[in-house]
Amino acid sequence: MFNKILIANRGEIALRIIRACRDLGIKTLAVYSEADEKSLHVQQADEAICIGSGPSTESYLRMDRIISAAEIGDVDAIHPGYGFLAENPHFAEICANCNIKFIGPKATTLKKMGNKAMARFHARKVGVPVAPGSDGIVESEKEALKISHQIGYPVIIKAVAGGGGRGMRIAHNDVSLVQGFVAAKLEAEKSFGDGSLYIEKLIEDPRHVEFQILADTKGKIVHVGERDCSIQRRNQKLVEESPSPIMDPALRKRMGKTSIRLAESVDYEGVGTVEYLVDKAGNFYFIEMNCRIQVEHPVTEEVYGVDLVKEQILVAAGYSIGKEWEELEPKKHAIEFRVNSEDGLQDFRPSAGKIDFLHLPGGPGIRVDSHLYQGIEISPYYDSMLAKIIAIGNSRDEAIARMNRALNETIIEGVKTTIPIGKSVFQNTDFKRGDYTTNLINKILAAKKSLEEH
Amino acid sequence: MFNKILIANRGEIALRIIRACRDLGIKTLAVYSEADEKSLHVQQADEAICIGSGPSTESYLRMDRIISAAEIGDVDAIHPGYGFLAENPHFAEICANCNIKFIGPKATTLKKMGNKAMARFHARKVGVPVAPGSDGIVESEKEALKISHQIGYPVIIKAVAGGGGRGMRIAHNDVSLVQGFVAAKLEAEKSFGDGSLYIEKLIEDPRHVEFQILADTKGKIVHVGERDCSIQRRNQKLVEESPSPIMDPALRKRMGKTSIRLAESVDYEGVGTVEYLVDKAGNFYFIEMNCRIQVEHPVTEEVYGVDLVKEQILVAAGYSIGKEWEELEPKKHAIEFRVNSEDGLQDFRPSAGKIDFLHLPGGPGIRVDSHLYQGIEISPYYDSMLAKIIAIGNSRDEAIARMNRALNETIIEGVKTTIPIGKSVFQNTDFKRGDYTTNLINKILAAKKSLEEH
Repeated sequence: MFNKILIANRGEIALRIIRACRDLGIKTLAVYSEADEKSLHVQQADEAICIGSGPSTESYLRMDRIISAAEIGDVDAIHPGYGFLAENPHFAEICANCNIKFIGPKATTLKKMGNKAMARFHARKVGVPVAPGSDGIVESEKEALKISHQIGYPVIIKAVAGGGGRGMRIAHNDVSLVQGFVAAKLEAEKSFGDGSLYIEKLIEDPRHVEFQILADTKGKIVHVGERDCSIQRRNQKLVEESPSPIMDPALRKRMGKTSIRLAESVDYEGVGTVEYLVDKAGNFYFIEMNCRIQVEHPVTEEVYGVDLVKEQILVAAGYSIGKEWEELEPKKHAIEFRVNSEDGLQDFRPSAGKIDFLHLPGGPGIRVDSHLYQGIEISPYYDSMLAKIIAIGNSRDEAIARMNRALNETIIEGVKTTIPIGKSVFQNTDFKRGDYTTNLINKILAAKKSLEEH
Repeated sequence: MFNKILIANRGEIALRIIRACRDLGIKTLAVYSEADEKSLHVQQADEAICIGSGPSTESYLRMDRIISAAEIGDVDAIHPGYGFLAENPHFAEICANCNIKFIGPKATTLKKMGNKAMARFHARKVGVPVAPGSDGIVESEKEALKISHQIGYPVIIKAVAGGGGRGMRIAHNDVSLVQGFVAAKLEAEKSFGDGSLYIEKLIEDPRHVEFQILADTKGKIVHVGERDCSIQRRNQKLVEESPSPIMDPALRKRMGKTSIRLAESVDYEGVGTVEYLVDKAGNFYFIEMNCRIQVEHPVTEEVYGVDLVKEQILVAAGYSIGKEWEELEPKKHAIEFRVNSEDGLQDFRPSAGKIDFLHLPGGPGIRVDSHLYQGIEISPYYDSMLAKIIAIGNSRDEAIARMNRALNETIIEGVKTTIPIGKSVFQNTDFKRGDYTTNLINKILAAKKSLEEH
């Protein structure tokens, strides 16, 4: 087992990893930027090393400084969390070269799944359904037009290096296709340093359903059910739940098997997520694989009674997946809501500032994963997530009631948050019925706007 | 169903009741003393009425003011929480006379179980085992000596109106018996306004095991398993867990049945707890019944996946207990630790002051029930409980690891707390083995002291 792990991340996920390490009796080394000096992950880790100034490019993305910290701290392993360097094959290689275990898949796996056009191509090759679209990168507007005519409008243009909804455009005709292609290329170049694009048939009003994968280093791979992440704003997840209201045991079995097949084909190791869109007819289409722990992993933990981060560390240390993981059944219903420092009613504009008063919810059926404390300054440098509120119940209705209670109870003064929009979601009749698609938040916002105008 | 409930309590239990009401869609009316003006239960309730000054006798114990508030607020029911008026038959009668539902057992039940000597007598009558001892109140030192000679030393002298460890003395011989009798009488008179005493054979180094009872108004009574509350300081519980490490299904069935029989014999309604001492041979002896929700109810909720406060309100409103309550099995292991504002290393002296910094634990397997926020003033008027930390795991070992993690993570600045003594308990080898009695904390403190002296 590892003796000490460096946590190459910040915020709630750094705290989450510290918690798993403590449960396993592993020491932790935090790294932090100057802006995060007073962060809880710095206070809570056994040791902490400052690796630069506020901007991520000067700290959390600096591989050289993180490796130096790992060497100074004499750690056995690095946990990258999510974002930052979590899916960077180059970083995984450097760790391997320095004889430090990178807690994640092999660099070769990250390379195969990191390029989204390649991943799509690879998935199709091993029999995983994908939406009709291009066979790899689309080089020009001309080629884009040709493919779109083949598969038929509407289509979606995506960046191969994409993530967080950036470098994406929807086109319903030739004009919007050409405009979208140029705009997406520029955005992708700016955001990811890689302007490569690919094209897919747009699945209209889909459900976003993903499968949790766990793989040990001996070739054993299991899935831990699905999460429904259809409630999104600007293509970013805001609410996740498990089980998915559209799932039945047969479909779970089919999608689970498909997900395991994909993971097997890339020699997967550790935790990962295979993401799909599901259309109204119940057809599912692979969109991408996330080769790391997800923000929304707690809903799976609560529904299946497992600790995914602990297990991720155990398999990285060479432990085999136990028999109990093969027979997991969903026992509860869990819903996660992301409390972000954003103005939900003003196009989710980020909101920075100091938290003047804080009360996070508690009591039965509520789990909170958060790095907040009263007095913390919310920095503009990093992502806007303040807290994950997870509501758990014996039924979906009970989980929703508890989520409503938790959101009503939460007090965060000093910044605008997504809580008002969250309240609208959890009181929405379509949501309560489980009858929603990725379009729900737009519908809610449109209804609010129309109400204000009348 | 009730439309609005008055919560005749404060602190975490008032918040807990608000949470249950919100889950049920019931409005809440908080009452508060001037000292509690800035309390979370006042902020979180739908309405709030001030009922007097800081001392409980001027507010939370003032039945007249609470009934006035109930009438002004036009509530259907009063939830008394625990302590204060929760087991006061006179208050239950007044509520009934005012046509307000008292959420608890009938006044006649409270009368029967409120006098501990009577309860003991009654239990024996219906075949519930009790320790050898007096048949009711012991009037004089002479009578006390006679009984003690009959049952043999050591004996324990107890107040019939007792609670919280007050009015209790242990005697090993005639001299300490006479001294103890006089001292216990004075203490009981001072604490409860009733100096009546009774005597029991002392069960040495026992386990304290209690059974959770739930009864509807139609005569159906179930038990929801046991809690082991053997970890105490000054006869007050500090740690509670479920299942009890000494329990097996056969003993659970026997003790559960016995508990239901006792509840049936007093026409029990609502939630209640039957408390026992268990000796080294596995014999159990009834000590008392608590006719209200207990502080430690969350461990049962987490182990059995139920909401006891919600169910308590439902049965008070006339709902029947569902079939699912008959087939409950313990599915998890849960441990509760009481974080009190007390100096655990200085004889648990209360510690008042302002909470300057606060971080309560979170993440997987942790539930927190607390009314704390950063900046709150801990008042000397009320009991010293700041927070209940509940650690839940698939196994006892997992729950203990998570509790250790949670206590290490918690930051409470401004007052002394029981956290240091909690850390000693959860790292103690005897505790980890499940091999402990009510004497464990004394043993830990003695070991610390001897270490300091050497």
